[in-house]
Amino acid sequence: MLYYFMKRQININKLNKKKLLSVDEYVSAIAKGDRNALSKAITLVESNNKSHQVIAEQIIEKCLPLSGKSFRIGITGVPGVGKSTFIEALGMFLIQQQHKKVAVLAIDPSSNKSSGSILGDKTRMNELSAQENAFIRPSPSSGTLGGVARATRESIILCEAAGYEIILVETVGVGQSETEVKLMVDFFLLLMLAGAGDELQGIKRGIMEMADALVINKAEGDNVDKAKTAKRAYQNALHLFPPNKNAWTPKVETCSALENTNIKEVWKIMEDFQHLVVSNGYFDTQRKEQVKHWLQSEINQALIAMFNDNTAIQDKLKVLEKEVLNNTKSPFAAASELIGLLKE
Amino acid sequence: MLYYFMKRQININKLNKKKLLSVDEYVSAIAKGDRNALSKAITLVESNNKSHQVIAEQIIEKCLPLSGKSFRIGITGVPGVGKSTFIEALGMFLIQQQHKKVAVLAIDPSSNKSSGSILGDKTRMNELSAQENAFIRPSPSSGTLGGVARATRESIILCEAAGYEIILVETVGVGQSETEVKLMVDFFLLLMLAGAGDELQGIKRGIMEMADALVINKAEGDNVDKAKTAKRAYQNALHLFPPNKNAWTPKVETCSALENTNIKEVWKIMEDFQHLVVSNGYFDTQRKEQVKHWLQSEINQALIAMFNDNTAIQDKLKVLEKEVLNNTKSPFAAASELIGLLKE
Repeated sequence: MLYYFMKRQININKLNKKKLLSVDEYVSAIAKGDRNALSKAITLVESNNKSHQVIAEQIIEKCLPLSGKSFRIGITGVPGVGKSTFIEALGMFLIQQQHKKVAVLAIDPSSNKSSGSILGDKTRMNELSAQENAFIRPSPSSGTLGGVARATRESIILCEAAGYEIILVETVGVGQSETEVKLMVDFFLLLMLAGAGDELQGIKRGIMEMADALVINKAEGDNVDKAKTAKRAYQNALHLFPPNKNAWTPKVETCSALENTNIKEVWKIMEDFQHLVVSNGYFDTQRKEQVKHWLQSEINQALIAMFNDNTAIQDKLKVLEKEVLNNTKSPFAAASELIGLLKE
Repeated sequence: MLYYFMKRQININKLNKKKLLSVDEYVSAIAKGDRNALSKAITLVESNNKSHQVIAEQIIEKCLPLSGKSFRIGITGVPGVGKSTFIEALGMFLIQQQHKKVAVLAIDPSSNKSSGSILGDKTRMNELSAQENAFIRPSPSSGTLGGVARATRESIILCEAAGYEIILVETVGVGQSETEVKLMVDFFLLLMLAGAGDELQGIKRGIMEMADALVINKAEGDNVDKAKTAKRAYQNALHLFPPNKNAWTPKVETCSALENTNIKEVWKIMEDFQHLVVSNGYFDTQRKEQVKHWLQSEINQALIAMFNDNTAIQDKLKVLEKEVLNNTKSPFAAASELIGLLKE
């Protein structure tokens, strides 16, 4: 499993040196559940190299009909809340008690800045990573949020084609990446700590409102009572939010990932959610909305790339930007001129 | 002043019926401080009518060299925090004690949904709206966030050209509009309440981090002690945030807009901020960054408009969207095809 934790750049260098498989070879190996092929395909998806991207897109295209059958779960929380331990405990439970195949992906565009980045530490999730039915993929070591988000969406497709039934997408609850993750998962779980000064947990309020469940981790030892108190407080707080259009009332639970308590109860919440939204049609509705959003986001990125790749436009932009900064031209007029030039 | 509170649609209907002034007539009237011309020009800026937009852009273009000399202050806070009362108290103080000309604008793209929308109620700010040196403009009654944000940016230019020295931009602290307002003001003030259950005040955490000052309003009667306690708590909390690049440490103050206490102290904070950032160069740096952002945002909107206005593209999009929803084509491939078609 160590292979999976190697830095992306090393992987890409390897790809360049080794003979690449053909698209069909990748797809058939992935469809058989070959973790090595899956990992290499994800590396292609993450690559900035144009030729890798072309292959990656062809692989994705052929994996798409095999995809879509997993339960996608987003997990967020501030650093220190115990995300890795929780994911290890939940993953082990799902594999051993529920006989599921579990993939773990991470989205964290800033992971190159902080040394203790999510899933970046090889020593974490030792037990889970040793499982035959687990696939763990660290966050790309760099990239824009848009790029990392796309790579994660495409990695979900690949993992599903490889037969993984539960996809856990990990993110740090302090930035914008949760909004992206929310747009690619079925269920969104916010991990919290009790009594750590709630308004200072670094959680953006919008994130609490996005959550389908709040799970208060580290409910162990002296902390059990505090966790229970926090559970009640959050239950009360959630009642003040407007109702969800999926008819689900967000749940609050406590657990100790370290001591492996209440993991089953947390999973029960997810199962209840899944039953509800599958039966009321929201599961499909949300998946469709997410695909539409993804398409819109790809279009926006492609439009901006077209604009940025045009050297005549970029030269004109430099001139116009000066005029705008000198208050002699409005941003609106400058944008109109540039678009006029682009149309020619 | 009642005129300024009439609904935008009524204004636009009037524009259509009345003979429009020429661009130069508008500009020279605005430059003389004519509030009627200013108000009409803002209505043009807010109009969705293409011919109005053309005139509006020409007016903006000619007003730009006259603009930029005000101190732009964003004010946010959840409904019920007393924004209107605070703005009235601050505005009256600035006019009567500081001899300033004060313009009040509102940004609230959702104002058509809630009947008690900001600045939408004619009965509010009676005292301020009666002042010769005040100009109060309610929020546009509808529009996308992008559209409303642009209209507000352009209205700031027009107000500055009309000689207003302080621009107060009001927004509701519950949505995305604060991020937009932060990008168009020099100073960002968050109004809060003491003891209302801070985590439930509807304030997004990101907004607290954007604020240059937190002002705890309604520090009156029984509430004075609670407000003082809250002031200390927030002062402690702010120390946990990373330092600002403008070298300013956000301040916390209490006030009672209703009883008109501590308004002077709040203004002192703004003045201190202004002195600091003007002297360390950040004032200009931030203004330049904001203009660049505005330009980028106009370019993005123009690109999307170009895409949306192309009927061949839109027809193709419908076909491709179905394929994407059926999992037979990836969003990436669909976007590439569309951009390819656009380039032809």
